Formats: sequence, C-alpha cells, structure tokens
Amino acid sequence: MAVASEKTEIARSIADARKRVAAARRAGRDVALVPTLGALHAGHMSLIDAAKKSGAYTVVSIFVNPTQFGPNEDLAAYPRTPQRDLSACAEAGVEIVFTPVAAEMYPPGDQTRVQPGPLADALCGPFRPGHFRGVCTVVAKLFQIVQPDAAYFGRKDAQQALIIERMVTDLCMPVKIVTCPLIRDADGLALSSRNVRLGAEDRAEALCLYRALKRAETLLKGGSRSTGSIIAEMRREISPRADVKVDYLSIVDPQTLEPIGGSARRALVAGAIRIGGVRLIDNLLVDMG
Amino acid sequence: MAVASEKTEIARSIADARKRVAAARRAGRDVALVPTLGALHAGHMSLIDAAKKSGAYTVVSIFVNPTQFGPNEDLAAYPRTPQRDLSACAEAGVEIVFTPVAAEMYPPGDQTRVQPGPLADALCGPFRPGHFRGVCTVVAKLFQIVQPDAAYFGRKDAQQALIIERMVTDLCMPVKIVTCPLIRDADGLALSSRNVRLGAEDRAEALCLYRALKRAETLLKGGSRSTGSIIAEMRREISPRADVKVDYLSIVDPQTLEPIGGSARRALVAGAIRIGGVRLIDNLLVDMG
Repeated sequence: MAVASEKTEIARSIADARKRVAAARRAGRDVALVPTLGALHAGHMSLIDAAKKSGAYTVVSIFVNPTQFGPNEDLAAYPRTPQRDLSACAEAGVEIVFTPVAAEMYPPGDQTRVQPGPLADALCGPFRPGHFRGVCTVVAKLFQIVQPDAAYFGRKDAQQALIIERMVTDLCMPVKIVTCPLIRDADGLALSSRNVRLGAEDRAEALCLYRALKRAETLLKGGSRSTGSIIAEMRREISPRADVKVDYLSIVDPQTLEPIGGSARRALVAGAIRIGGVRLIDNLLVDMG
Repeated sequence: MAVASEKTEIARSIADARKRVAAARRAGRDVALVPTLGALHAGHMSLIDAAKKSGAYTVVSIFVNPTQFGPNEDLAAYPRTPQRDLSACAEAGVEIVFTPVAAEMYPPGDQTRVQPGPLADALCGPFRPGHFRGVCTVVAKLFQIVQPDAAYFGRKDAQQALIIERMVTDLCMPVKIVTCPLIRDADGLALSSRNVRLGAEDRAEALCLYRALKRAETLLKGGSRSTGSIIAEMRREISPRADVKVDYLSIVDPQTLEPIGGSARRALVAGAIRIGGVRLIDNLLVDMG
C-alpha cells in the first residue's frame, strides 16, 4: 500500500482494497465506488465529486479492462496517465485508488461472464460485440471486491449506465447506481479519455456529432416524430471527410433503447462516429414534454 | 415473517431475508447459506448440519428456479414438499428458511445472466442447454441477497459445485464454497429429490447407474486407463430396458472435466440416465494413487 498523498491510499491488490474498505466500514463509513479506465478528465472528476459530496469513503478504481475491448479495438492505444490520475484523485480527497492488475482480475482459468440482455443489442452493441459483457463482468467483480453502497457512472455512456442498472436489479446487487450528467468542453464536445488522441483538426471535425444530436433535439422539440427523416437531417451534419465514419445515429426510448413511438415524450438521441481511427460517442436526452 | 418453530423464521421476500441476515451480522454472527430446490432429503440435511456445525447463522433457501429447467424438463413435476421441508429445517435448528417467489427473483424486464465457461460444456451440459447458466444466475442472486460467508453444495452435483467454485473465483465473490460428500441410500442409490418420482421397480432398476460407476472404479483402480473400454464395460451394467436411456457415462479429470490422460491419478466417473422419464445423475471420485 503506497501513499499518494496525506489521504489517498493506492491499493494494487484485491486483498489490499478489501482490507482498507473493511476498516472504513468498521469505522461506520458508507462506501462509494467510481469505476474508471483511468485517463481521468472533468467527467470522471464530476463523478468523484458527487461520491465525495455524499460523505462516503470513496474508492476510485482505475483498470483498463481487457474484456471490454474487441480484438480490433484500441486496448493498447487507450490513453494511460497514471501519475496525473493519482494527483487528481488525491486533490479530490479520494480515500483509495484501486489499480488492480489483469492477472488478478482475471485469474488463471477464468471463464465466467456476466451477460447482459437485449439492452446490450442496441446502439453500440452491434459495433462492439462482447463489449457490454466485458463491462458487466468487470463491474460485477469490482462490486464484489469493494461492496460499495453506491457506484457512480456518467451519462456520456448512457447505454452502459442503463445496462449496469439492469444488472444490479436483475442480480439483486445491494448497490445504488448513481448516474451523473454528461460533461462537455466549452465548445460542446463530450469529454472522453479518447479525445486526447484527436489532433486539432480532427477535434474540430468531431464536433459534427454534437451538432447532429442538437439538430435532432430541435426537430423533436419542434414536434417531428419521423425518426427516419430526423436521422437523415442528422447525417447532413456529419463531416463529409472520407475518414469520418458513422457507426450509428439513433433515436430511441431512454429506458428500453427501442425505437420511439409517435406518442413518446422522451427520447435518447445517440450516435457513434469514428474519426481518424478514434471512436467517439455522444448522446442527448430530449424531453418533448 | 411467519414463525415455523421457536427458532426458524420464514422469509418470503428479499427484504425480509436481508433484514434478518443484517440483524444476525450486527449480532456478530457469520452467515451460511444452503441453496436448495426444496424436497429436502438426507443429502440436503447433511449440508444443513455442516452449516450449523460451523456455528454460522444458517439460511436455507428453497426455490425451484425456473431458469435452470429447459423447456422440455420437469419444472412442473419437480417434487415440492414445503411443510415437510420447514419441519426438517426447524428440527435442524435452521435460523431462516428463505422461500422467494419467482416474480421477485426474476423482476419484470429481467435479462442479465451469469454465464459459466467451458466447465458447463462437459457432462450434463450438452443434455441440459442453459441449465448451468440458470444455476449460476440464481446462485449469484442468492449470494447478493444473503451475502453469506460460506455456502454449502453437495458432491452429488459435482459439476455444479465445480462451476459454482469457478464463478466465485472468477467474479471475486467473498464467499467460501463448502462441498460436502454425496449421500446414498443403504442400497447405494444416490439421494435425489427426484427419487420420489420413481416407482419401486424403477427405483431398483435405477441402481444400475451406481453399479456402472463402481465397475469403472474397479477397473481404474486395477490399472486400466483405456477409458473407451471402461465405458463399454459400464454400459453393460446399464439396464437393457427400453425406457432406460443413457445421457452419458464419462471418465474425466475432476478439476477440468476434460478426458483423463494415461498418467491421471484421480478421475471423476460420472453418468446420467433417464428411467421412466426421471433423469438421475451420479458420480464417484476415484483415487488411483
């Protein structure tokens, strides 16, 4: 157990993390978990701040989980900024940063998975086979290790938050899931650890996804329910550059992720694009009153 | 919360069970769980006795879990003896009998499953598609509800015990799995809740499975490692009656459930037969020194 600051401990093993959390529990503290892949940005920090404000003993896990990356995805290229992450956690007053190694999270012979249902087939599902199974599996493990009272997730990953909520309900896990607002840069770009992989030009071009979502919001709020034509309008906002690819642009029910009907009062407008090899997602929750 | 005896409480809801267990924990008790499908027999009672002997506050769950039965299996015909089960638990000094309803264990919209790996593809796996997924899912739920320190399973279901142990390791569940010996009737028949569905004649005929396992044991201990010819010898022990069907007779490594090699020192000899529509399993762990 190394010391990152006066207050923040680093737990590198499951046993270390458990020991610290057990001591906090004996001292009467509630426990909060903020699971992350590291490369912390203001979005993560907003989750950490919410956990800290709850008064709970706050555990931030940093683990680039291999099972949620497909064979052709960016596991190796995923940004890693361990020193900056630790400093940010220390400054935020985090009690433990838990940085397990893959060999302990996936012990020899490991073969059990937590398999989500149809919610994982929508939106990002078809483009990232096995991704949400990997997410559910690692989050279930983290919940078993830390046994938090509450766990914090961001609405940037709206589908993930919904699938985790479903897992917690279905598996009777005694954890409260707190979903926090998506955080954007001043120009509107949704914060993502992957944004650092965008050059200045690609970064500017990436804003087209947000513009497409805003266009859909305007049309939905204006009364249109013709999702086909709204999505066609959205596509017009997407950069025509040859290396900008749309995975999907979708308008779905925020709870079921199924297509909205004509009488829908809320919609999740969501999209994923790839730009210069970097995959970006974004979404807006639209209230049509 | 109804009272079954001076000591044994019946919890019919998840909230009831959690409240009782939390009170026991506050009183400093360790908690043991014995998950069952009810129709308790001496095999179950040996698990309950082991749990009680550990000194733990003992929870027996009785739930005929629908997701571990296939569409053509005996969910409806599975024996149910609730009053006798409660009396047996009360006599054994069980603290809580937890009898949840399917609608609470599988809430509306339920879709998350715990999926075991290759261990579930061996032995019973091909004959009961989805069975071990259902078992892992319900046991994971029970573990989340009761949060036991230890859970007790019988070696009669050797494959199940192995898969549950694997799940607990893989998902970092803080539960100790205790596997207890298989219990037989005086004539050698492995105890099973399904035995009550056998008429007297079928019951006598059912002993052929045990004889086949014993034959394999003799041959293995005698030095034979030719599993093909051992299994042929086993088949000769199986009743020739037309309504006696063999699902499988197998000789596998007790840890991996893969075929044993010539230098194996232990083997799990396992079989499943159907007799008059009742499916029976049995196994012997053979130590070849």
